[in-house]
Amino acid sequence: MGEQTRTRHGYPVVRTISTRWEDEDVYGHVNNVVYYSYFDTAVNGYLIEATGTDIRRLDAYGVVAETGCQFRRELRFPLDVEAGLKVTKLGRSSVVYEIALFQGDHAEPAAVGRFVHVYVTGAERAVTPVPELIREVLEPLVG
Amino acid sequence: MGEQTRTRHGYPVVRTISTRWEDEDVYGHVNNVVYYSYFDTAVNGYLIEATGTDIRRLDAYGVVAETGCQFRRELRFPLDVEAGLKVTKLGRSSVVYEIALFQGDHAEPAAVGRFVHVYVTGAERAVTPVPELIREVLEPLVG
Amino acid sequence: MGEQTRTRHGYPVVRTISTRWEDEDVYGHVNNVVYYSYFDTAVNGYLIEATGTDIRRLDAYGVVAETGCQFRRELRFPLDVEAGLKVTKLGRSSVVYEIALFQGDHAEPAAVGRFVHVYVTGAERAVTPVPELIREVLEPLVG
Amino acid sequence: MGEQTRTRHGYPVVRTISTRWEDEDVYGHVNNVVYYSYFDTAVNGYLIEATGTDIRRLDAYGVVAETGCQFRRELRFPLDVEAGLKVTKLGRSSVVYEIALFQGDHAEPAAVGRFVHVYVTGAERAVTPVPELIREVLEPLVG
Repeated sequence: MGEQTRTRHGYPVVRTISTRWEDEDVYGHVNNVVYYSYFDTAVNGYLIEATGTDIRRLDAYGVVAETGCQFRRELRFPLDVEAGLKVTKLGRSSVVYEIALFQGDHAEPAAVGRFVHVYVTGAERAVTPVPELIREVLEPLVG
Repeated sequence: MGEQTRTRHGYPVVRTISTRWEDEDVYGHVNNVVYYSYFDTAVNGYLIEATGTDIRRLDAYGVVAETGCQFRRELRFPLDVEAGLKVTKLGRSSVVYEIALFQGDHAEPAAVGRFVHVYVTGAERAVTPVPELIREVLEPLVG
Repeated sequence: MGEQTRTRHGYPVVRTISTRWEDEDVYGHVNNVVYYSYFDTAVNGYLIEATGTDIRRLDAYGVVAETGCQFRRELRFPLDVEAGLKVTKLGRSSVVYEIALFQGDHAEPAAVGRFVHVYVTGAERAVTPVPELIREVLEPLVG
Repeated sequence: MGEQTRTRHGYPVVRTISTRWEDEDVYGHVNNVVYYSYFDTAVNGYLIEATGTDIRRLDAYGVVAETGCQFRRELRFPLDVEAGLKVTKLGRSSVVYEIALFQGDHAEPAAVGRFVHVYVTGAERAVTPVPELIREVLEPLVG
């Protein structure tokens, strides 16, 4: 994560997310917690739209096993955030995403994050392979 | 609020807000609390962009005195929400907004809200007139 | 709502909710949106603990039909918020709550809200009577 | 972070945070994003209470440079969360916290996080030493 710094062009998918007034905290910038909501939204939004499937109704679904973020520059309301998405590891049951957040004219990301999904089934959350229709839309993002 | 039901065309300004994965609660729809974050975002986003001014740095700023919402239909991730904005009362120190939330093909709003700003100054929050540059961008929304 | 102002003693149930750093916005007070998350939490937390039942697994569950709030005084992090709860109407399928938020030494509420639940079943959200085990724990709150 | 697993007793400070209905997502557990709001709240709540000072008004304040979390077990509403706090590095201008989240009878944490504050001044966010009154309340947490 973040050894070299990528621009928007380094990410096969870029998704636009609008910021909210409430995202800013007392210091007048987007609160650190909210960056993770951008990550969550970019990943799940891509999966739903790329598969054309409501992934919330599949037998197997991704639970978050690990996340992390390096904060490099502030984000502010009301400009949109662009989330660049790339898969750094597509395993049998897990997927590791690298996500970079951009805003405005800056070529370099304001933040770079890591987001790990593990696929499980049912209420017992037993580990299971990544569903085929999800694997298909993730393969083009591997790099 | 909501006597007659307006479509998007009944609102002089319509702003687009992206939904987030986190917005949905355990019942698989956007949680009621989040609707108010759309209201907050639509109002303040309009004020910042229409005035071309960072309203957070003005001496006088709007604090929320009252809000309300009628929930008519579910909203879901990942479709965008469109927030129709109209001013139903532009007072000396206060502004009453009507805000309607739309999603997808539905002509009728999923929710209709009321949002009241009172303008105050400084840390003492003393009531003060609506600043002139804000009044100017609100007048076209009165109806 | 709010004709007369009640103190904590005017509410049959008072629930304590901790504030969060993230609750504050750029103006250095709890953002208006967050008050509704205190309402939501007070109502559902009471229902789960008073019934001793995970209400999320019942066939009939409450969806929010209407909410409103009058904001009278700021709330700040890190003091706890106390939410006074009372039922102003216990209907066949709906429940109207009055909720007041208190913080610190103030006898009078910082905010007074209205919260309306309508009970529905399944994915179709068909209106249904308030379940008996929920009605039982709401009756002592009517006043 | 998380090489050995600590129980509550491995943390010099344990802070209690109430969960909220809205914290749960469509999968019926606390959403991953919200864990970071518990971290944020535990750290800043401790700093405010231990120093007896409103740290938001100091000239130097902590901005978040990096965070991370390993999710090991679900958290659910309405049980409280206990956040164990420990400082793993107290630098000249930065502080690295380890935070573990506990809920219910489990001795082992549901999540273990890393939270890095860098102290800066004013609007330019220039790096500055950790203020003395903050350093004093952090020294007992180093371990």
